[in-house]
Amino acid sequence: MDINQQMKLFMEPESIAAIGVSRHTGPNAYNLLENLLEYGYPGRLYPVNPNTAEILGVKTYASVADTPETADLGVISLPRHLVPQVVKQCVEKGIKALVIVTQGFADADDAEGQRLQREIVDMVQGTGTRILGPNTFGVANAHLSMSTSYIRIPMEANGVGTISQTGGTFVGLNDIRLAGKIVDVGDACDVDIVDCLHYFEQDNDTRVVVLHIEGMPDAKDFVETVRRVALKKPTLALKTGRSAQSARAVQSHTGALTGSDALWDIALRSAGVLRVEDIEELSDAIRAFLTLPPPKGTGIGLTTYTGGFGIIAADACGRNGMELVDFSETTMAALKALSPEWLGVGNPVDIWPGVSIMGHPRTEMESAALQHVLSDPNVHAAMAVISAYQPRLGEEHLPMIRSVARNFPDKPFVYFMYGLHFDAVRKTLESTGTTLAFPSPERAVRALMHLKRRADFLQRQSVPYGSRAV
Amino acid sequence: MDINQQMKLFMEPESIAAIGVSRHTGPNAYNLLENLLEYGYPGRLYPVNPNTAEILGVKTYASVADTPETADLGVISLPRHLVPQVVKQCVEKGIKALVIVTQGFADADDAEGQRLQREIVDMVQGTGTRILGPNTFGVANAHLSMSTSYIRIPMEANGVGTISQTGGTFVGLNDIRLAGKIVDVGDACDVDIVDCLHYFEQDNDTRVVVLHIEGMPDAKDFVETVRRVALKKPTLALKTGRSAQSARAVQSHTGALTGSDALWDIALRSAGVLRVEDIEELSDAIRAFLTLPPPKGTGIGLTTYTGGFGIIAADACGRNGMELVDFSETTMAALKALSPEWLGVGNPVDIWPGVSIMGHPRTEMESAALQHVLSDPNVHAAMAVISAYQPRLGEEHLPMIRSVARNFPDKPFVYFMYGLHFDAVRKTLESTGTTLAFPSPERAVRALMHLKRRADFLQRQSVPYGSRAV
Repeated sequence: MDINQQMKLFMEPESIAAIGVSRHTGPNAYNLLENLLEYGYPGRLYPVNPNTAEILGVKTYASVADTPETADLGVISLPRHLVPQVVKQCVEKGIKALVIVTQGFADADDAEGQRLQREIVDMVQGTGTRILGPNTFGVANAHLSMSTSYIRIPMEANGVGTISQTGGTFVGLNDIRLAGKIVDVGDACDVDIVDCLHYFEQDNDTRVVVLHIEGMPDAKDFVETVRRVALKKPTLALKTGRSAQSARAVQSHTGALTGSDALWDIALRSAGVLRVEDIEELSDAIRAFLTLPPPKGTGIGLTTYTGGFGIIAADACGRNGMELVDFSETTMAALKALSPEWLGVGNPVDIWPGVSIMGHPRTEMESAALQHVLSDPNVHAAMAVISAYQPRLGEEHLPMIRSVARNFPDKPFVYFMYGLHFDAVRKTLESTGTTLAFPSPERAVRALMHLKRRADFLQRQSVPYGSRAV
Repeated sequence: MDINQQMKLFMEPESIAAIGVSRHTGPNAYNLLENLLEYGYPGRLYPVNPNTAEILGVKTYASVADTPETADLGVISLPRHLVPQVVKQCVEKGIKALVIVTQGFADADDAEGQRLQREIVDMVQGTGTRILGPNTFGVANAHLSMSTSYIRIPMEANGVGTISQTGGTFVGLNDIRLAGKIVDVGDACDVDIVDCLHYFEQDNDTRVVVLHIEGMPDAKDFVETVRRVALKKPTLALKTGRSAQSARAVQSHTGALTGSDALWDIALRSAGVLRVEDIEELSDAIRAFLTLPPPKGTGIGLTTYTGGFGIIAADACGRNGMELVDFSETTMAALKALSPEWLGVGNPVDIWPGVSIMGHPRTEMESAALQHVLSDPNVHAAMAVISAYQPRLGEEHLPMIRSVARNFPDKPFVYFMYGLHFDAVRKTLESTGTTLAFPSPERAVRALMHLKRRADFLQRQSVPYGSRAV
């Protein structure tokens, strides 16, 4: 079986044998079967539990040997000393993909854990059965309403494909789910990050690839493979375990070696992988790649209602390698015509005097200024600075956002927005699917910077941006 | 009149003459009178508009000369060429505090603006009347349900006192309002940041002082005054206009010179002012000072359900000058007793094996681990890493949070929380008034770092922390 077919058994199983499903259901029971029923997973389910005939109305089996078909995927959640014998039964049944949820293998602090891990690895050697884990949440595929995580996660069939060394990522970040599709390699005794990369490279549902990396025994294969993936799809990495202290914690978490952080920096950059520092940066960058076109340069044009917050945004541009460009004479003339004579027009563009003194209706002034800014050949991306001073403010912006997306499809346009009604207004603005609103200029500009870096990488590789997934 | 009495006329007026109030009311009318009525401002209102007898049922006056008393505060919002004659009328009426909202003075790009500004400054010279602005939102005092801003802002009588060079701050950030009380110095033709500092130094409603600084002509007075304020109250500064580019924008915004950014860094630090880089850092730090005790050292203890996110948090500690300390033998023994034998117990503390394998109920395991961590003499602050996988999760935490606040009143305890239900769970956790939940470990640790830095500053000045405002 080639690696892609193999990984499909994990990621897109038509049937699942759930070995060690409890009779306990309801809140805090963390019941895999209950979760899958709740999600509406359309595949066939074979719960294995020798102590009962059914759970939640689904027939159970005393052993995996008794199940009426060979499931695509086996999920094992049992005390660690019972795991090897069940792995053996699964191999004998012919199951080719096994998720081992159980903790206490390479992640344990004792010799027994190491021994058990070697035992299960030896057991599948040469059988065609592959193991994901142990110490894993397994996989989730929102496109198939399926997750092997015992924590019930919200389903959202977005374009994010995540490879993780923790189950924590299954829950998602505040602004985005990391699955789409997700795979947690856990202790990675067999299936590793490279195997998973093969899957996401080919997968048509996945538009952005996200890596959570703590460490790995051999980075050579990884770098070659991930470089190929990054040529096709935006690929982001949260590489953790940076300090000596956290590196020790990694070792006790999954038994992986973190390696030199500086080397990781170089390796990821040379492979075209965009490294992020924290989870908000990750979330922002993912959303940018799912929503915005890449800017063709570093030139940003700002429109603002307040000089003060325009300057805050200008500082953020300076810190993130973007720049407030000088406008062309045509743009300057157009902006001057909208403003009182005394106003020193420039970048950022101050919109308020045009409204309060010239009497232009607010939405018309906003729209006109923004279109002039985006028409400027020096401007590669635009940011509007607005305050969320009332919750329904976003609705007034919708026609303008749609018009900008139509007229400037190759220039990203984002908002930096502040104020207590941020969430409500953001929801409205982002409902257009063509813009994003960020709660700080820092985060907005950093997201644009990642788009720009990817554009630069592809240009260095002579890969035309438009022809690829995003 | 001493400066504090003078500033009280601006910040706590018992009567307001609103000069140039429009007859237009409703959405997008930005009507000061309508706003004040809506807030429920309890003082006396004298709208001045020669073209109507009443607005919204409030009697209007043809001129400020006709108002039946001398208002504590005059607010002028008229085209710039009309401002000088109205300032003259106000001086003649005996009004001692004037907010000039109008733009187009020192902030303008023309000679006329500069001339008008000199004209109004000369006009009040020696009269005892002081001008705030021009080009200002004026003041807001939520404790008095009052704001002179034409944008209607939400009122929240919190302990934040802000001095700003932009009206943008009136709207507030996403997580906190900056007023409490706020004053926008605008072009600062007369009342300046130093004057405002005198007020907030004395003001009993203000527990945290926030500065938004673009620049000022003379920083010497400022540094001396702000140092005195910082000894009494936590004082935070967002100093903008860092780059040459944004410095140019500052000059056209308020006419102020930004000065060398490195010098600002040194001046603020030596004065005990905590400088922040962006608005999220500002918001997080304010909330920390309003809610948490200062840590007595850099030692952090982490509890987590997932090794992976524990390591992400550990990285954030490393980047922000805090450290995951080694636990004492007593703590280690207590944590080992809660966990399966194979688990390598340490910092971060992995809670899940104690639940899933040892069978401790989740809330009991959480609470026990956290109390052991906080009892450790090496630990000065604790962070719990949790996932917001369902919206009502916070309720289970409330007894534990209350118990921690009772038993460890001098050790800050915060959450780093991720997941789509962040907002709902945060609201519940923070309802206790003793903890904060942050959406990234970076932000949580940075907020703790600001608390620690302030504690260090006070210690260097031999000021006992507990004896002061926070």
